[in-house]
Amino acid sequence: MERRFLSGKDESQFRHQGAVELLVFNVLLILTILTIWLFKNHRFRFLHETGGAMVYGECINCGIVDQSDSPVQKVPKSEISENFISQTNQWFLLKPYQMTFDPEIFFNVLLPPIIFHAGYSLKKKHFFQNLGSILTYAFLGTAISCIVIGLIMYGFVQGMIHAGQLKNGDFHFTDCLFFGSLMSATDPVTVLAIFHELHVDLDLYTLLFGESVLNDAVAIVLTYSISIYSPKENPNVFDAAAFFQSVGNFLGIFAGSFAMGSAYAVVTALLTKFTRLCEFPMLETGLFFLLSWSAFLSAEASGLTGIVAVLFCGVTQAHYTYNNLSSDSKMRTKQLFEFMNFLAENVIFCYMGLALFTFQNHIFNALFILGAFLAIFVARACNIYPLSFFLNLGRKQKIPWNFQHMMMFSGLRGAIAFALAIRDTDSQPKQMMFTTTLLIVFFTVWVFGGGTTPMLAWLQIRVGVDLDEDLKEEPSSHQEANSVDKSSTKTESAWLFRMWYGFDHKYLKPILTHSGPPLTTTLPEWCSPISRLLTSPQAYGEHLKEDDVECIVNQDELAMNYQEQVSSPCSTPARLGLDSNASPQTPSKENIYEGDLGLGGYELKLEQTPGQSQLN
Amino acid sequence: MERRFLSGKDESQFRHQGAVELLVFNVLLILTILTIWLFKNHRFRFLHETGGAMVYGECINCGIVDQSDSPVQKVPKSEISENFISQTNQWFLLKPYQMTFDPEIFFNVLLPPIIFHAGYSLKKKHFFQNLGSILTYAFLGTAISCIVIGLIMYGFVQGMIHAGQLKNGDFHFTDCLFFGSLMSATDPVTVLAIFHELHVDLDLYTLLFGESVLNDAVAIVLTYSISIYSPKENPNVFDAAAFFQSVGNFLGIFAGSFAMGSAYAVVTALLTKFTRLCEFPMLETGLFFLLSWSAFLSAEASGLTGIVAVLFCGVTQAHYTYNNLSSDSKMRTKQLFEFMNFLAENVIFCYMGLALFTFQNHIFNALFILGAFLAIFVARACNIYPLSFFLNLGRKQKIPWNFQHMMMFSGLRGAIAFALAIRDTDSQPKQMMFTTTLLIVFFTVWVFGGGTTPMLAWLQIRVGVDLDEDLKEEPSSHQEANSVDKSSTKTESAWLFRMWYGFDHKYLKPILTHSGPPLTTTLPEWCSPISRLLTSPQAYGEHLKEDDVECIVNQDELAMNYQEQVSSPCSTPARLGLDSNASPQTPSKENIYEGDLGLGGYELKLEQTPGQSQLN
Repeated sequence: MERRFLSGKDESQFRHQGAVELLVFNVLLILTILTIWLFKNHRFRFLHETGGAMVYGECINCGIVDQSDSPVQKVPKSEISENFISQTNQWFLLKPYQMTFDPEIFFNVLLPPIIFHAGYSLKKKHFFQNLGSILTYAFLGTAISCIVIGLIMYGFVQGMIHAGQLKNGDFHFTDCLFFGSLMSATDPVTVLAIFHELHVDLDLYTLLFGESVLNDAVAIVLTYSISIYSPKENPNVFDAAAFFQSVGNFLGIFAGSFAMGSAYAVVTALLTKFTRLCEFPMLETGLFFLLSWSAFLSAEASGLTGIVAVLFCGVTQAHYTYNNLSSDSKMRTKQLFEFMNFLAENVIFCYMGLALFTFQNHIFNALFILGAFLAIFVARACNIYPLSFFLNLGRKQKIPWNFQHMMMFSGLRGAIAFALAIRDTDSQPKQMMFTTTLLIVFFTVWVFGGGTTPMLAWLQIRVGVDLDEDLKEEPSSHQEANSVDKSSTKTESAWLFRMWYGFDHKYLKPILTHSGPPLTTTLPEWCSPISRLLTSPQAYGEHLKEDDVECIVNQDELAMNYQEQVSSPCSTPARLGLDSNASPQTPSKENIYEGDLGLGGYELKLEQTPGQSQLN
Repeated sequence: MERRFLSGKDESQFRHQGAVELLVFNVLLILTILTIWLFKNHRFRFLHETGGAMVYGECINCGIVDQSDSPVQKVPKSEISENFISQTNQWFLLKPYQMTFDPEIFFNVLLPPIIFHAGYSLKKKHFFQNLGSILTYAFLGTAISCIVIGLIMYGFVQGMIHAGQLKNGDFHFTDCLFFGSLMSATDPVTVLAIFHELHVDLDLYTLLFGESVLNDAVAIVLTYSISIYSPKENPNVFDAAAFFQSVGNFLGIFAGSFAMGSAYAVVTALLTKFTRLCEFPMLETGLFFLLSWSAFLSAEASGLTGIVAVLFCGVTQAHYTYNNLSSDSKMRTKQLFEFMNFLAENVIFCYMGLALFTFQNHIFNALFILGAFLAIFVARACNIYPLSFFLNLGRKQKIPWNFQHMMMFSGLRGAIAFALAIRDTDSQPKQMMFTTTLLIVFFTVWVFGGGTTPMLAWLQIRVGVDLDEDLKEEPSSHQEANSVDKSSTKTESAWLFRMWYGFDHKYLKPILTHSGPPLTTTLPEWCSPISRLLTSPQAYGEHLKEDDVECIVNQDELAMNYQEQVSSPCSTPARLGLDSNASPQTPSKENIYEGDLGLGGYELKLEQTPGQSQLN
């Protein structure tokens, strides 16, 4: 009896401690929410909620650290590794006055909803219009950034070795590249929140948002590829075989994760299309949530990168499945992921505040920190300006200088960099990197995040644009749209865009959603059994002619651009009258659809920029 | 380099296994959802989603067990305890072909949303009208059930000892009572889902729902109190001191948890009342969620019962805070908790299916199982029929026989009983209890859950009642209401109801929400500074007279019953014209408010039941 009583007590002791720690986080988050409310109420914009969360994280910390004897003590190496390796199975490391999550929580619990939300809330139309630029910044830019940071840091590391602060052999070039790759994950959440609030120019918003979202994926896979780069002999010597294996790893993991994420979204789209789940919004939402999460888990289970899978799953879900959902589920899924994103983001930033003081193995090295700050600015500049220059050669609508400066300025580091850095802290170089990453995150979020509004004013970037596409149904925008020159909606990356749009409109949308032309008209004759099976009953029928055209065009946000630029690559299913807006004989209708996107006033102004008019 | 590579691989191995396990659960849930959809689509009602979840849990199991060598092997005692105690820190016990959650997950992650949702979705009006009966069933009924089951099981245990199946001293009377208390937690989720779908009589629904919700709380605290009942000497001998200590524990924990939960809800109500958070639905929802969760965590941290705290937090949030929320947040919070409830419930039932085969230490004892089945039926009968008899002596609106039979029939066991049983499985009696509990849950969910619809028909219980109170604003119901005899809404527990309602309407509602009379009129003169501070600006003002009365009365669902029964206990704030509907001079208006609740047709029919007419 005594034993059971005791063991019960021990167990409840554990439970209580876990509850206390979660409670502390809850209180921090509650304080953060109240502060954000206070700030929003008074229209302060210099501190974003994430910044606030960090401040509170630090505050609670100071209280904790004061009671502790040796907050930043040096712990012998073995204990360090024990600390962090033993955590793999534990959610909390229970030491007095110390609260640390298992780093894997960041990757498996907190990041997926953030990343999925980013993909799911993508402004599709602008994203696909700027696809070429976004891909360039995300892939090429991240690679440039990684290499530049790696090189600069290697220089500084050599300096540190000369200065005797570091032993030779502790810090390889691969470590520098590792740091470069994790530091390349930009996270302008603060900037984007302010952009959203101030309704900043949509193209700038999209470029920055698209870049940061894809760049996270690239940085994560890059970091992983570098961490498993293992030359056979001297790690300092370049090993071509190992290098190409790393590149192969990178490409394989990226492509595999992309395929996995998209595949799950396609399954969801087909399920929501062919079962009439929309009568039961709860089941539909549940299915949507579980399949999206399964994309993450399947990728992890098969050795791919779950975060990348979940990102592309989100994008695909938004593009196809979203159209099949009932209006109730549309709202539910949006709000659910918005809420999860909000919570996860604030937990991460709160935790960063906590980690600045409670993490036991900080290594503050002034030279390394200085080098890192220098490196991220140089790398960001080497990424944005040259790439923008080359992109402008091909873009019809140039990226103006003020946009480039703003993108340069928005190179904040955040959750991903932190999560990548905390994942591995069992060697001295890694600890130094972690400390430096933390400081850079703090600095960029506070200084650059806080400086966004003044910077926007200084660079004279247009604010107050109608960002919310929900307004597209307002009749007032129809009026405006009529006065817009249609050619102004032409943007860059036309060939990529056209190719993608044609394929998407002719095959993918009809297969995966209820919209688009019936497959029987777009697929070759010999596919007719399959195409008849896959075509939604809604895609046939006379009732489409009048009522559903508007709805479909609204869903199909890209329609009007495509139809303006391409003369006749799409076999117009004339018999349905569906694409009546595709024929140039009906300009008034076309204008209405354009107006429906609420971009009238916005496009009008863009057209007046000098670089634009000379090209049209 | 090699080491890191390996350790990285080990770590990712672990991650992959965790991902695979979660994936299996996800797939099970996805299958469950698709099955539910199929069933709902074809209007099958014999298998509820929870039943389906269990089936799939078992199916996956069979696949797993087939590959395993010894699925139900006897493991030596030490290993058993090691298995289950070591799990405290682990989320998954990683053995090939075996998946077990940490039992604490049920208590800390899965149950709180279910219980909170139950509290939050309570039909307040009917709940408070039947408060006396519900409390009687929940407290007295659960105590009776616990003791009856304990006694019967003790008899069977003695029989088992005689038959040589059990050693004397293994199974104390306290163990029997422990089993009785955990078996007393009824969970008619299947029945209630069918009730909801078929729109069964609201009073029966409320009685059953209220009983099951509160009875969970009682059973949890009771189980805990019994488990820490530790007589100093022989555990088989009654120890008065220890017994009274247990009773004291029960009362203290219950009251403390109640206070903790309500306190957090009150804080939330005040925060949402005085900060205008409603302009930011996301912040409001976040605050609501975090404060409700904090109620759970605080109770756990201070040694109380989180589940009980979160239940009363939910009830209080629904009663007060809900009125302060913006309409967007109202929907968001409702849908969020509905969704979490849906997922958590299905995970638990899925897991139960899994546990039937994968749990390594099942002890199937035919005599014990037989005894348990007998015990729960006898105990349910001893609970429902005598208590209903006594309640009918005091109730104006009797609980008819068919309701009593239906309540008897709805004594399903579910998530709580399972969670209580799995929490402690480190001794043989406890393992026997766990196995038996699992079987009882399966049997009751499948047989009784599946038999609900035929039973309703056989007992001639009215279905198709307008359950959704949202319809109250439909003008059609106004018409009906006018033809209703007002006295028909009079129900039982009048004195308790009146007392509570008076206090709530005069003090609590004005303090915590924007509705009700201004505190300056209800509180004594000397409190005026405080009352002026706490009264919502909306409570004053002339505009209330016409526009807001209806809205406030709608929020204040209890109004009309109170005003019909009580002559003048509430100091009518006549100067505001707010309670004009309280004065009997305005019968037409009163009828409209009654009609607003959409109960016209319903109450009309109730009045025609024989037991009712003779009392009115």
